Amino acid sequence: MPIAFRVQRMQEGARRGVLETPHGSIQTPAFMPVGTQATVKAMTPEELQEIGYGLILANTYHLYLRPGAELVAAAGGLHRFMHWSGAILTDSGGFQVFSLSPLRDVSEEGVRFRSHIDGSTHFLSPEKVIEVEEALGADIIMPLDECLPYPVSREEAAISLARTTRWAQRCWHALQTDQALFGIVQGATYPELRAESARQLVALDLPGYAVGGLSVGEPKEIMYDILGQTTACLPPEKPRYLMGVGSPEDLVEGVARGVDLFDCVLPTRIARHGSILTRQGRLSLRNARFKDDWGPPDPDCHCYVCRNYSRGYLRHLFTSDEILGLRLATYHNLAFLYQEMEEIRQALDEGSFAAYRQAFLARYGGAPRVAGNNEQEMCEGG
Amino acid sequence: MPIAFRVQRMQEGARRGVLETPHGSIQTPAFMPVGTQATVKAMTPEELQEIGYGLILANTYHLYLRPGAELVAAAGGLHRFMHWSGAILTDSGGFQVFSLSPLRDVSEEGVRFRSHIDGSTHFLSPEKVIEVEEALGADIIMPLDECLPYPVSREEAAISLARTTRWAQRCWHALQTDQALFGIVQGATYPELRAESARQLVALDLPGYAVGGLSVGEPKEIMYDILGQTTACLPPEKPRYLMGVGSPEDLVEGVARGVDLFDCVLPTRIARHGSILTRQGRLSLRNARFKDDWGPPDPDCHCYVCRNYSRGYLRHLFTSDEILGLRLATYHNLAFLYQEMEEIRQALDEGSFAAYRQAFLARYGGAPRVAGNNEQEMCEGG
Repeated sequence: MPIAFRVQRMQEGARRGVLETPHGSIQTPAFMPVGTQATVKAMTPEELQEIGYGLILANTYHLYLRPGAELVAAAGGLHRFMHWSGAILTDSGGFQVFSLSPLRDVSEEGVRFRSHIDGSTHFLSPEKVIEVEEALGADIIMPLDECLPYPVSREEAAISLARTTRWAQRCWHALQTDQALFGIVQGATYPELRAESARQLVALDLPGYAVGGLSVGEPKEIMYDILGQTTACLPPEKPRYLMGVGSPEDLVEGVARGVDLFDCVLPTRIARHGSILTRQGRLSLRNARFKDDWGPPDPDCHCYVCRNYSRGYLRHLFTSDEILGLRLATYHNLAFLYQEMEEIRQALDEGSFAAYRQAFLARYGGAPRVAGNNEQEMCEGG
Repeated sequence: MPIAFRVQRMQEGARRGVLETPHGSIQTPAFMPVGTQATVKAMTPEELQEIGYGLILANTYHLYLRPGAELVAAAGGLHRFMHWSGAILTDSGGFQVFSLSPLRDVSEEGVRFRSHIDGSTHFLSPEKVIEVEEALGADIIMPLDECLPYPVSREEAAISLARTTRWAQRCWHALQTDQALFGIVQGATYPELRAESARQLVALDLPGYAVGGLSVGEPKEIMYDILGQTTACLPPEKPRYLMGVGSPEDLVEGVARGVDLFDCVLPTRIARHGSILTRQGRLSLRNARFKDDWGPPDPDCHCYVCRNYSRGYLRHLFTSDEILGLRLATYHNLAFLYQEMEEIRQALDEGSFAAYRQAFLARYGGAPRVAGNNEQEMCEGG
């Protein structure tokens, strides 16, 4: 087995664990920075490691289109290509095909789509996705799946999830390496479909499971309910990954529902637009009120940026369109989420996660969401 | 005296020295990275220090317009504002007024111009420039000067240089701090005017002298000749700074003509467009031939970038418009020029500068330029 996962401690639904990969051990729950095009935007690998990160995500869809999987393989694989000695997870491209491609055509065989870069036509089958991911050589890989928008009819969701399961089976059979292939649970916002999807994938006994198709426009309450109902259907000994979710409050709430891994472009994307995460919520550094604010970006943060730069200087960098501005904001936002996950892990170690969750959300302007009553029932009854 | 300069060794016209500043000692000859808007584009201060830099330039014109000198002063001065513990030189804004402002009106009193940012009207007198530079708090400051284009008539150049001298006198009288004010020798491409300008400024006994108004479009031969004739008119015990010049070959040729300090946006600007400096000349990393080139950007360079990344990866970053691409190219280009200056200093220490110059230019595709015969005569006769 290329990866190994141990849950060391549980508190309510939350799990504290360790994920062993061929490129290092990851303390979980953990957030993964997104390195879409074989680079976490604006960051060096050393900076990610300095913050504490050991596992990042890269996008199969983007790397398939540019520079191409063969080229990355010729460079010695993704780790070497991008000078990253830590672990990597590649997604399947499914989400990007469905969100970025101007035209797509889904069939049982796979998905035909147009490149968002040059309009060229491409076809990705489950087998082709595995071939690409094998060439990229990530530690953890994802199967081709169909990610539906919100809202979607129950019938459409049922047809789609059945196909996603068949694609996962084909991926699993096509895989020739010892990369860890996770399953992706779909089923939109229908608890029974989620349970059904989980049951089908768990039958494959994959090394890990992801929850896909959430945070695609549905209200937060629904997302949290569906998430809790879905993780309840997954085997406790396998790692669980909530795809594309990573706001500070969603991380806490995701952990509370048994999630071990997260990824999201939010911290890096909002940074490039001049926004930073703080314990008091998001701040737009372009705001004129920070003009002569010589305090640190986030007074509660102890990252490189908050130790050395002021809000006033960062505002100057952003209003002057200076690259250093988005570098520093990106660094801080990734450090912010790393620190949050570190605090969560510590709270789990100390048995104080419930109190941490309460305090975090109160401070961040939210309150813990009560999980739906039927969370456990769905699967235990299935 | 806020700065102190010692020439330790001379070889032909070249000088090996040390410049002591309130923010550290600088080994000369030295190149200064340009931090136009209180940031060397795409770099952190720590990265500049890691390369070896201890002295950078910032632009009075840009900082006067944005964020404003009072704001920088309120932040504790430029060093603190931008988190740079090394030394800083601020230019006077003269060059930018003459090159960036869409409209300007020069009178004896000073220069009225429009901001290139918002079109607002501003007036900079010599006294105002000093007030702004005092607020910024750099270690070395430059007086307001008029930088003429090439070509320009002798008459125009004579009138302009006389005014530049009067402005330098006014700056010198206005200065209330112990910041080191350098004089700027002008005189276009007329050797007698250069000599006259130098004589007038040397009479002020300023702590250092700059050569301005070169590399503004004149042929290289003329630039090298005028430079050699000008430095010959400057007192040997004072540091000499060639403004706005910094291609690899111009650094060697400038040192050969007795220059101690250089600055130029070239290494950082071409980096952002995907070009890197190498011992074999410039390379555009966007070129398709680097697609599968897994060797280092410059095989002879031992910087962080050349130790860890390939040309193929950098090409991918540039074709994908990734910020990391221009970060890495900027880092390398600044490291390249630092290494070149370090080699020049070492050659001067070892008495092998003539051979170094010959070898460098042969490799870089050039050959040493013979200085004009009248270099010494101009000043010794003046």
